[in-house]
Amino acid sequence: MEILKGLIKKTDAKIVLVVLDGLGDLPFKEGKTPLEAARTPNLDSLARKSALGLHIPVDYGITPGSGPGHLGIFGYDPLKINIGRGVLEALGVGLELKETDVAIRGNFATVKYENGSPVVVDRRAGRIPTEENQRLIKYLFENISKIEDAEIILKSGMEHRFVVVFRFPYKVPPEVETINDTDPQAVGKSPLKPVGKGEIAEKVSKIAEIFSQKVAELLKNEPRANYALLRGFSVKPALETFEEKFGLRACAIATYPMYKGLASLVGMKIIKFEGMGIKDEIEALKKEWQNFDFFFLHIKKTDSAGEDGNFEMKTKVIEEFDSFLLEILALNPSVLCITGDHSTPCILKSHSWHPVPVLIHSPYVLGNTSERFTERECLKGELGIFYAYKLMPLLLAHAKNLKKYGA
Amino acid sequence: MEILKGLIKKTDAKIVLVVLDGLGDLPFKEGKTPLEAARTPNLDSLARKSALGLHIPVDYGITPGSGPGHLGIFGYDPLKINIGRGVLEALGVGLELKETDVAIRGNFATVKYENGSPVVVDRRAGRIPTEENQRLIKYLFENISKIEDAEIILKSGMEHRFVVVFRFPYKVPPEVETINDTDPQAVGKSPLKPVGKGEIAEKVSKIAEIFSQKVAELLKNEPRANYALLRGFSVKPALETFEEKFGLRACAIATYPMYKGLASLVGMKIIKFEGMGIKDEIEALKKEWQNFDFFFLHIKKTDSAGEDGNFEMKTKVIEEFDSFLLEILALNPSVLCITGDHSTPCILKSHSWHPVPVLIHSPYVLGNTSERFTERECLKGELGIFYAYKLMPLLLAHAKNLKKYGA
Repeated sequence: MEILKGLIKKTDAKIVLVVLDGLGDLPFKEGKTPLEAARTPNLDSLARKSALGLHIPVDYGITPGSGPGHLGIFGYDPLKINIGRGVLEALGVGLELKETDVAIRGNFATVKYENGSPVVVDRRAGRIPTEENQRLIKYLFENISKIEDAEIILKSGMEHRFVVVFRFPYKVPPEVETINDTDPQAVGKSPLKPVGKGEIAEKVSKIAEIFSQKVAELLKNEPRANYALLRGFSVKPALETFEEKFGLRACAIATYPMYKGLASLVGMKIIKFEGMGIKDEIEALKKEWQNFDFFFLHIKKTDSAGEDGNFEMKTKVIEEFDSFLLEILALNPSVLCITGDHSTPCILKSHSWHPVPVLIHSPYVLGNTSERFTERECLKGELGIFYAYKLMPLLLAHAKNLKKYGA
Repeated sequence: MEILKGLIKKTDAKIVLVVLDGLGDLPFKEGKTPLEAARTPNLDSLARKSALGLHIPVDYGITPGSGPGHLGIFGYDPLKINIGRGVLEALGVGLELKETDVAIRGNFATVKYENGSPVVVDRRAGRIPTEENQRLIKYLFENISKIEDAEIILKSGMEHRFVVVFRFPYKVPPEVETINDTDPQAVGKSPLKPVGKGEIAEKVSKIAEIFSQKVAELLKNEPRANYALLRGFSVKPALETFEEKFGLRACAIATYPMYKGLASLVGMKIIKFEGMGIKDEIEALKKEWQNFDFFFLHIKKTDSAGEDGNFEMKTKVIEEFDSFLLEILALNPSVLCITGDHSTPCILKSHSWHPVPVLIHSPYVLGNTSERFTERECLKGELGIFYAYKLMPLLLAHAKNLKKYGA
């Protein structure tokens, strides 16, 4: 992929990448996948004149999380880039990270004290309700604003989970990722002391230790959530931006924090708009059409339905997307790509390793290989089965944004 | 693939890998391959509900020997691992190698003496009958038991070929693979003096020289086989075991020494059983069902038939395997994979580079892509064409033995 950058040329092309999260699936009751069961007249018609295939998100047999899944379709080899757990969790709760931040996952836990030392009784504090979590985080936030030169930022997640960010007045090096989790991974054990390698990592470890002590002191009278275990110390990865890598001014149209966060990691502009529906996203796309070269449009609910094993819902979300397809095509994009970041088969109720259908619409395709946009029809397509991180070069090529390589 | 190890989880899954040696083929007289000509009602039925594809054993255009062919389907990239010729030959004649062994291929040769120096007249001693070889090896074995601190182990191969192992009281380093062959590769030339780089390699070279002299002395009155040329000095490669790599307790059910040897190189347990038939192998599989997670079942005769250009025989072996398929399925394996280690087309009478049909049966496949398990029908399958060393991650995924990568 090193050669790509030298071949990039700027054009007026507009590229739309629609990601239906967790799109790929397996046969359900009557032997059909949601894409096969859905009535999608517009997608069917588009499929017949488009290039089809399937992408492998990470590698054969590997089931990706949302991070690696999106990095791949954004053109970054997910086997070569590591996004720390703390960073992903921070993106998931909607925190905007800077280069000066250390992001850490927190779990509220229950401890008892033996000879003055905490011993873990429940690593998840009985999975306290999210509302209780929010009350505690508000209280902690009001009482811990700064430790040494680190500003403390706190945000609740679901149940016992939260995120803490230490924001420094200077850039933080990756060495802080050497800091161990304080979670001892078992009840009956004491929380571990955080220790890291390197001057800054030692300093961050010290701050983490003080933070844990302050939390324990502030929550000492709580019946369940009287301690915080810290995991996944990490920093925002230093990724080449989408514009540096592909020469595209890119924006993200998404409703969930995680996907806005992932897009912002590669430097995409996050579009603000009202509403959570596909309709609202399409409106945002139209509104921003003149302002960018590349539009990442993320639709979450295919994945949620797959995770719930809700075949009918997944089918319905696909049909809903189909009903908006003509509005996207009316914008006359140079290249329209429709795919997913991974498969979420309803029968598995989880992400999976299965290749994901891809459709590339442009004037420069063979087409006429397949009848519909489904897993099985995509197998007949001209793109074959390919690694997800090869998708971006294909989109650039179809947009005529790549020069010839060599003479 | 460095990430794979971190994703492995232990389950109760049972995985069966059936390797029909040299399975892939090309059209014969009536335009059909053996898989196409064979009547295989059970395989046909299984194929319709399985994931199909083809694997490339080593790389495009590369014809593998049995070593690289099996390493690939065992999940080891055969381009990155070297198994020395002496080691492969030793495995082929059924010698069990230790880390303290140097394995060497021997050829009986005919030499004449000029001014007291041997000059090669026939590098293969007129391809003496195997029985004559066995008589000579027995005689040599009785008369050369030890040279310096090396125990000498000898075993006949076919015609002029044999294997000699120097067994030391200590582990032997890979530097002995620097020792040159003593075979001058042409008649009219003197055998070469073995020379190696490194202290142990020098010592082994010296022992090899003494061994050659002793053989020449003992065989001086033989009319044809009066000398031994030595080739392929090598040591057992230090491979990560199958259990270390994939977390699976694995066993091998095979009838030929070479395949038992290859399986033992990756740490599989070799199952002992009576008989040489597919029926006997299936019985062994049933008997060991409770004792392992992974079963490598090797069927040799598809390859032998291909090597003989015997289309009818290859077809018959496939039909025989088909007749046992329901017995394997009755064990209810979590994942059943049927493939070959390479192609052995009858029209070539040799191994070839052609991709090899693969079938993966599990509840987590698309299926319904193809009518039968044949080369051409596998081209329509959901697995596409992929490198053989990606097969193991796929089998682990279908067995649900892999965790999600990244959050």
